[in-house]
Amino acid sequence: MKLYGYWRSSASYRVRIALNLKEIEVEHVPVNLKLGEHKDGAYAGINPQRLVPTLELDDDHRITQSEAIIAYLDEVYRRVPLYPSDPLTRAQVRAAVSVIGADTAPIQNLRILSYLRDTFGHSDTETHEWARHWIATGLANLEDIAQSKEAAFTLTEEPSVVECFLVPQMYNARRFNVDMAALPRLCEIESRCQAIPAFEAARPENQSDAPD
Amino acid sequence: MKLYGYWRSSASYRVRIALNLKEIEVEHVPVNLKLGEHKDGAYAGINPQRLVPTLELDDDHRITQSEAIIAYLDEVYRRVPLYPSDPLTRAQVRAAVSVIGADTAPIQNLRILSYLRDTFGHSDTETHEWARHWIATGLANLEDIAQSKEAAFTLTEEPSVVECFLVPQMYNARRFNVDMAALPRLCEIESRCQAIPAFEAARPENQSDAPD
Repeated sequence: MKLYGYWRSSASYRVRIALNLKEIEVEHVPVNLKLGEHKDGAYAGINPQRLVPTLELDDDHRITQSEAIIAYLDEVYRRVPLYPSDPLTRAQVRAAVSVIGADTAPIQNLRILSYLRDTFGHSDTETHEWARHWIATGLANLEDIAQSKEAAFTLTEEPSVVECFLVPQMYNARRFNVDMAALPRLCEIESRCQAIPAFEAARPENQSDAPD
Repeated sequence: MKLYGYWRSSASYRVRIALNLKEIEVEHVPVNLKLGEHKDGAYAGINPQRLVPTLELDDDHRITQSEAIIAYLDEVYRRVPLYPSDPLTRAQVRAAVSVIGADTAPIQNLRILSYLRDTFGHSDTETHEWARHWIATGLANLEDIAQSKEAAFTLTEEPSVVECFLVPQMYNARRFNVDMAALPRLCEIESRCQAIPAFEAARPENQSDAPD
């Protein structure tokens, strides 16, 4: 399989964590978002939405959207399950994923910040304040969820798909100077994750397309 | 079970469609977003994220986030499955759901438009243009997906979770004057849905809390 992604894309980062936790080897194909490679013809043929990541299966079928890719991997590769087996806990896990994947990340990604800057004429200070506001809001909600449960990770005793979403969002939060002191439980969970080689290997800085 | 929702909330609308397709009866509890009831103490105790919808089970457990609620209902009430059984088609269905649920709806909902108006000082014309831009972008992507498949609905021969997300987004698109002529296949799928009583009964105008 091939994973088209970008070192700093948080959606790519989520899928790298899931692949590593499941010990699935794939070929990583970098798509340089900074150079606009996702918008050009070759990648648009692979993913018409022009977003990363895309997982290409060995039979050439393609799956887009990080949550769909991780759910697919979890269904097909049963080793190291990333979704709990109980329907209610699965629902809570999926809700926590949506707090990041729907209500936080899409509001502060590159195309949104570019629109605020280029179409609405906002300064870098204002676009950063926008990103900081929505990341802080989303992570505060996830902090509440995590505090309501006594578990080693957000909702479970082993890393789940929630941590695949959480850790990249925490990385983004630091880029935008979100106040991490307000997120003690999430910081503790993040540290626990970073001590796991699967998370360490997935870090943006450790990718072949990251700058030196 | 109880569903806390709001007649015009597209996330509530999605869950109403799923419940109706599965013929699951619930008590509908209106939360008036226009009056800010979602922000007050009573509802914040039910859903700390202060968003609708919330599904309250008969054992008082609660599930938030429309996608998590629909996936839960589909796992627990197997009648009229809303996710296909084949893992690859499931993945394509989930990806289509994310195009709406992550990449479109959260960028144009009430709290985002309020922030653009109240914090950034944008006019109604500008906030409408923002909403129209992101809805048109997201639906154009879904139109591409739908056109790539020959099926009665977006990706399947019977309505799936994709249509639970699509129909409320089309409703929103009309509110913001998105050019529907650019979305011929989605308009055709929407018409096919609206002819089904489960979709008809879920329409915002047909809810008890809708204004006369």
